[in-house]
Amino acid sequence: MAAESRHLRELPELKSMNLLASTSFGRLVFSQHALPAIRLVNHIVDDGAVIIRTQLAATVLAPTGTVVTYEADAIDPHTHLGWSVIITGLAEWVTDARDVVRYERVLRPWGIGDQDQVIRIRPHLIAGFELAEHASN
Amino acid sequence: MAAESRHLRELPELKSMNLLASTSFGRLVFSQHALPAIRLVNHIVDDGAVIIRTQLAATVLAPTGTVVTYEADAIDPHTHLGWSVIITGLAEWVTDARDVVRYERVLRPWGIGDQDQVIRIRPHLIAGFELAEHASN
Repeated sequence: MAAESRHLRELPELKSMNLLASTSFGRLVFSQHALPAIRLVNHIVDDGAVIIRTQLAATVLAPTGTVVTYEADAIDPHTHLGWSVIITGLAEWVTDARDVVRYERVLRPWGIGDQDQVIRIRPHLIAGFELAEHASN
Repeated sequence: MAAESRHLRELPELKSMNLLASTSFGRLVFSQHALPAIRLVNHIVDDGAVIIRTQLAATVLAPTGTVVTYEADAIDPHTHLGWSVIITGLAEWVTDARDVVRYERVLRPWGIGDQDQVIRIRPHLIAGFELAEHASN
């Protein structure tokens, strides 16, 4: 019978960004009232940056930008095999009107309501890992 | 043809904790070096508290406990329908030797290595929501 072992390996940055771009939602991680906070949002990856829409912009983002973390993953709920990508970087409001229109066309806000803003997160740190299973005899 | 609308609704605390207990992994959200951080971990819910194992204990937790946030969800990657539960509370090392042994028996650390500690997070805030679809004619 084959013995199975699980192997956690780090992924290169490019591979990590490609995985992030392959999925359409993730989790914005930020500080709110000095407490760690997390919120599900939809995203796209455009020109190396993560673009999201959130109603949190006004409370989360300073006018000069705020460092946030963003995570997306695809994990099998039973085996736990899969990948997770975590980026950290400066989040800023997207202010260019053409960009806003373009992003709003492809990005649906997670909840209901139209009070959302488009946010661009430029990755400064990119960390990805994969949990895979190897069979050995 | 039926028009479909998506409905985001808040879940009661008890329902939220039951959903959290129904899944076996989630995301620990904390501050590290003054930056927002997130890490996948396995969990169980025991006596109303979330129990995790992590190698981060020494860097994340102050001796008197640290406020962290914990999130788990089950979201369909295509429709985005599903639920998310977010708790915030004080995280403390589990020090009772019998508890540690009991928890280590049922909780597998996410990665490789045995440098992990067992952590108990007592929920102070519990927020759960469900994104569901309603069809109407």
